[in-house]
Amino acid sequence: MGTRSGRVERLTADGELRADVIRVLLVHDACLVRSVLAEWLRREPDLGVYDTTWRGAPGRVRSVRPDVCAVDLDCADSHGVPPLADVCGRGAGSLTAPRLLVLAHANRPGLLKRAAEAGALGYVDKEGSPERLVSGIRRVAEGERFVDDSLGFGFLKAAEMPLTRRELSVLSLAAGGASVAEIAGSLHLSHGTVRNYMSAITRKTGARNRIDAIRISQGEGWV
Amino acid sequence: MGTRSGRVERLTADGELRADVIRVLLVHDACLVRSVLAEWLRREPDLGVYDTTWRGAPGRVRSVRPDVCAVDLDCADSHGVPPLADVCGRGAGSLTAPRLLVLAHANRPGLLKRAAEAGALGYVDKEGSPERLVSGIRRVAEGERFVDDSLGFGFLKAAEMPLTRRELSVLSLAAGGASVAEIAGSLHLSHGTVRNYMSAITRKTGARNRIDAIRISQGEGWV
Repeated sequence: MGTRSGRVERLTADGELRADVIRVLLVHDACLVRSVLAEWLRREPDLGVYDTTWRGAPGRVRSVRPDVCAVDLDCADSHGVPPLADVCGRGAGSLTAPRLLVLAHANRPGLLKRAAEAGALGYVDKEGSPERLVSGIRRVAEGERFVDDSLGFGFLKAAEMPLTRRELSVLSLAAGGASVAEIAGSLHLSHGTVRNYMSAITRKTGARNRIDAIRISQGEGWV
Repeated sequence: MGTRSGRVERLTADGELRADVIRVLLVHDACLVRSVLAEWLRREPDLGVYDTTWRGAPGRVRSVRPDVCAVDLDCADSHGVPPLADVCGRGAGSLTAPRLLVLAHANRPGLLKRAAEAGALGYVDKEGSPERLVSGIRRVAEGERFVDDSLGFGFLKAAEMPLTRRELSVLSLAAGGASVAEIAGSLHLSHGTVRNYMSAITRKTGARNRIDAIRISQGEGWV
């Protein structure tokens, strides 16, 4: 994959990455795309690039100690919500957590919101050009914010998210196939309360029914 | 993006693509990844690479007349089923339809099955190395079959798909948020028959309930 050849010039005489090189951990679930993207980033002489799946990310954060985690917000687990907290912040179990840059879609405001809550500094639109990813990584490495304008509508929709935290919990369990009784059991609620939450969710999302509410919410990345 | 410089040596003195160059149309919905992947493919001197979204694919097939369409089976429309017939075969409205190569996941047997039905010759695992994509394109351009071994389990599951065509139609409409009455209306069935289909679907997919059946079936790419 040209990994080593690309990295040689970034090493000191002792074989360490030069201090002025930005250590980047690229997190993306599909190996084929991740390899090509990582190789593309390695052409930049100021970047030292490592790559991993979401599943492998927490371990690699500890071993690589990246300056920047550049993560794809789409996670291969079906309707998966990426475990952002495990990669950055408290979950990473490090005093110097890496700075977070996300690759996002404007039409999945729920994921943008999660990234903002996880403290992401960089937001690169997957509909944009790959050069934006490089610019974003450099900016975020400096501790600065980097946001693609084209994601603005997504942030607007994220700000307008109609569901409460409790409603989101109910909806997530329902989307996972849990029955009313199972949802009631795991959230310590009565069956009637769960049904009331489901009605409120259906109404607030503008859905036709419960299945439609799940479909809409998953499409936007809320659950 | 280095597009033009990479393509010059592939042109004849008249500015046409040399006849021995394989014309490849890369179809992938996320611009950032598509650009990097296309640029990566353009390093191969025997490939002439064009790229487009799924939405733009039918038009580009007509204008570019590719030898090979290399398509990502994941489509950005939420739970979208890629419109394979529009890209290859009858839908493309051409006497010489391009040969089809798909980028697939073993855990989405429904999409593998659709690709096989659309007459795809090449099946490259997204969990594999990008070099396989290049090998696959060359093989498929010769009219030969190319299948990654690691997709075998996906094909096995595709062969075992438990639902009938009619059950899949019912499930697709339900997954889109349609009510029993709406499904009955659009498929010219009675409400009771739709309910019977939904029960059969839930049982056959090993689901706990209707929502779970949709979740399982979408995860595997059946609907």
